[in-house]
Amino acid sequence: MPSSLEFTHLTAQGHAQMVDVSDKPETVREARAEAVVRMLPTTLARLMAGDLPKGDVFAVARIAGISAAKRAHELIPLCHALALSAVEVELNARGDDAVCIRTRCKLNGRTGVEMEALTAASVAALTLYDMCKAVDRGMCIEHIRLLEKSGGASGHFQAAPDALKEGCA
Amino acid sequence: MPSSLEFTHLTAQGHAQMVDVSDKPETVREARAEAVVRMLPTTLARLMAGDLPKGDVFAVARIAGISAAKRAHELIPLCHALALSAVEVELNARGDDAVCIRTRCKLNGRTGVEMEALTAASVAALTLYDMCKAVDRGMCIEHIRLLEKSGGASGHFQAAPDALKEGCA
Amino acid sequence: MPSSLEFTHLTAQGHAQMVDVSDKPETVREARAEAVVRMLPTTLARLMAGDLPKGDVFAVARIAGISAAKRAHELIPLCHALALSAVEVELNARGDDAVCIRTRCKLNGRTGVEMEALTAASVAALTLYDMCKAVDRGMCIEHIRLLEKSGGASGHFQAAPDALKEGCA
Amino acid sequence: MPSSLEFTHLTAQGHAQMVDVSDKPETVREARAEAVVRMLPTTLARLMAGDLPKGDVFAVARIAGISAAKRAHELIPLCHALALSAVEVELNARGDDAVCIRTRCKLNGRTGVEMEALTAASVAALTLYDMCKAVDRGMCIEHIRLLEKSGGASGHFQAAPDALKEGCA
Amino acid sequence: MPSSLEFTHLTAQGHAQMVDVSDKPETVREARAEAVVRMLPTTLARLMAGDLPKGDVFAVARIAGISAAKRAHELIPLCHALALSAVEVELNARGDDAVCIRTRCKLNGRTGVEMEALTAASVAALTLYDMCKAVDRGMCIEHIRLLEKSGGASGHFQAAPDALKEGCA
Amino acid sequence: MPSSLEFTHLTAQGHAQMVDVSDKPETVREARAEAVVRMLPTTLARLMAGDLPKGDVFAVARIAGISAAKRAHELIPLCHALALSAVEVELNARGDDAVCIRTRCKLNGRTGVEMEALTAASVAALTLYDMCKAVDRGMCIEHIRLLEKSGGASGHFQAAPDALKEGCA
Repeated sequence: MPSSLEFTHLTAQGHAQMVDVSDKPETVREARAEAVVRMLPTTLARLMAGDLPKGDVFAVARIAGISAAKRAHELIPLCHALALSAVEVELNARGDDAVCIRTRCKLNGRTGVEMEALTAASVAALTLYDMCKAVDRGMCIEHIRLLEKSGGASGHFQAAPDALKEGCA
Repeated sequence: MPSSLEFTHLTAQGHAQMVDVSDKPETVREARAEAVVRMLPTTLARLMAGDLPKGDVFAVARIAGISAAKRAHELIPLCHALALSAVEVELNARGDDAVCIRTRCKLNGRTGVEMEALTAASVAALTLYDMCKAVDRGMCIEHIRLLEKSGGASGHFQAAPDALKEGCA
Repeated sequence: MPSSLEFTHLTAQGHAQMVDVSDKPETVREARAEAVVRMLPTTLARLMAGDLPKGDVFAVARIAGISAAKRAHELIPLCHALALSAVEVELNARGDDAVCIRTRCKLNGRTGVEMEALTAASVAALTLYDMCKAVDRGMCIEHIRLLEKSGGASGHFQAAPDALKEGCA
Repeated sequence: MPSSLEFTHLTAQGHAQMVDVSDKPETVREARAEAVVRMLPTTLARLMAGDLPKGDVFAVARIAGISAAKRAHELIPLCHALALSAVEVELNARGDDAVCIRTRCKLNGRTGVEMEALTAASVAALTLYDMCKAVDRGMCIEHIRLLEKSGGASGHFQAAPDALKEGCA
Repeated sequence: MPSSLEFTHLTAQGHAQMVDVSDKPETVREARAEAVVRMLPTTLARLMAGDLPKGDVFAVARIAGISAAKRAHELIPLCHALALSAVEVELNARGDDAVCIRTRCKLNGRTGVEMEALTAASVAALTLYDMCKAVDRGMCIEHIRLLEKSGGASGHFQAAPDALKEGCA
Repeated sequence: MPSSLEFTHLTAQGHAQMVDVSDKPETVREARAEAVVRMLPTTLARLMAGDLPKGDVFAVARIAGISAAKRAHELIPLCHALALSAVEVELNARGDDAVCIRTRCKLNGRTGVEMEALTAASVAALTLYDMCKAVDRGMCIEHIRLLEKSGGASGHFQAAPDALKEGCA
């Protein structure tokens, strides 16, 4: 198995370490991720309907996601701190019982930004849950996953089409 | 529809607010949540096998989850800050292709701790993803949901058995 | 001069200290504050007009203000950490060249929440500045002040009417 | 109107986004800002007089301002995280009823540091308020504004002289 | 061995957990700690001498210590978040080659505040190191320890006199 | 005395400032530090012995140290924020009554990482204290110091052998 398929966050003794990236080049790196929040159809209907559709709900989730991307390294112990050059978080209703969250993060730097994109999606989903939980405590967050990444030595990654079918697409 | 089923985080104008809980009594509140991280069987096998089974991997995820529970109010804009009296995070292999994460939070206070338990599960899952992503970028975080909550005016909640079947059980 | 009019954050040696509040009773405390962001009339017009009036701008400022209230003790070195029971932040256009921000914080606790209300107003104003700076770098944040506080040994405070005239009213 | 005068923090749909700066060059950028804290003459007199003039008061405000500059991106949702190369915060009495705060931030990077300089001024002012509020709750923070910025595509900005007259100068 | 002498932060499986304190009573708890920063006599002389003795150096260390006490639960994974009711940090020269740091924390709550007092001492010492390192990189932080604690089920603790002799006393 | 031996964190007035590093080159910088936690022999014996030697204890301390390195600039007011490229924290028993902690931090950047390495060692030590305090409140953290640094204008530093003798070696 190639060395790129090792648990790089562990030393030979199995101890956690923050991987040394000081020899990696600074390049543009990008990652996209998604999450799905499944809810009762009546919850989604109330969220989308009315004269004041969803009020601040989607805006709050969007901002929470963007803010969380900037804090991924505080939440995930072995993540490198980095200075993201762009973050986007979008929410859309999907079918009659789900909201799909898609995120995109970019960096000029030495490490990938998969964790930032995944963290943005997760926290946007948690925030949506928080705002709707008074009406629907049985909501479930599904399919948090990486859709695509580019840049860096490990090359391009794209989620398999099958995987995507269960998600937002 | 009873007033308990309103979007309490929104004002009448649809504006985000942090709900006023100053009139609620201080009681013991508890919540349990879960998340499932699905991965390739070979990834799980490598994680569980060997002389040095999983090294620090589960410990790092556990601690990241506990730390994240304490920071839920920093991540989720309308969450109240609170002083948790207990946090537990456990990880277990499930079948040949998944790790199940179960969390439990307790509080003597005026608000429920669902978001803290859900945040702990989410961040433990993200941390597990981070530590294994070099060997398996297609991992997927599934079924982040509330299992049970007790204490507070909204009463006891328990996830439906069906829902549980897809999760850790 | 009564002892209540001392610089309580300084020891007799002039050294900073976090005041001992352990003997104070837990009571409901509340504070309201305001800030005004003055801008070019064309900036305000663009912010308020159109099919998509102000998009997320006011929502982002509102959420930033609420989140900042929870972090006042991290920003202001001698502020006590506390668990706010309610936070509200509202933004309204005033005249043709200003946005008025009003905040309200509540606590069941041992210290006042003036700094939390003032911090919420300040950070909401900074966030508004951030979102509009590409079109109007000369904006100015004015009149950050306490409007009213209640609860606690120092009693009720209400800003003088004169003072209010320059502000949002 | 040139594209540089758009609300760059909003997408075409009016949704908040963190602007993509990955194509901007790394250059030295600098910004200076100010704030004025107006207080009762007796408050200022007590702050400045005595054998132990102002004790730690100005030092605490200075340090709070410097620390806040480093956290601007945590407070302001769409601000990029960045690694400031210099921060200065100075406080001076002005006339008999005000303290003037001046800040300066520098960066080798891809985004301007206006928000960092403004945040430093705001939090230094809030900290001064906090330390004096036991003797003067009617203090007011005025004229938080950008004095000058340089570096970056949007070019040099200098506050108009009129504006300065009301401020510290 | 009594149960009070167990590693309470570990489950029976040796897994980290945040201890459940929800059944403990809210009482006044207090802890005092110390640290010693040993340096070259010339470094201390320069710190203490002159027309402008030590400038902001001791103030910065004091404030850093106070701020750190409020963040102990963010740094130490299994520490409970809590709302300190008082924090004091004092620095004094000792002999010709050391600065002694003494801290005191108080809480009305369910857990002890030893870690907060120790964290305040440690971070004040690190900050002193930071401010003096350009002139003396060989400084050493010694004797970070608990001096006394009171309140709570585990009773009163006082450091042994011998131990104290090596420290600040 | 050369200018490199000034208190660079102070202005000519003795005021705290964050030193301007914008003219320094980006180079690889590295620092190693250590701390010793002295405890009762029985405490160390219990920590190291058994079927489940030390459970998560060392892992929790390691992760706390790594996380703290990333936050040094939040704790130490005049530290520059920076994006570490590597962090390692190792703990080892030494003799029958001490645990030795060694840390290493790396950066491609404009400032040294001594404070990051020292902060990692300090917080790992505090975390170890936290996890063992229920069995041994008299533990003492000793010899937090810089072992070596390289990179940057101030050149290479190595702790004197004598100093090392009292520490981990």
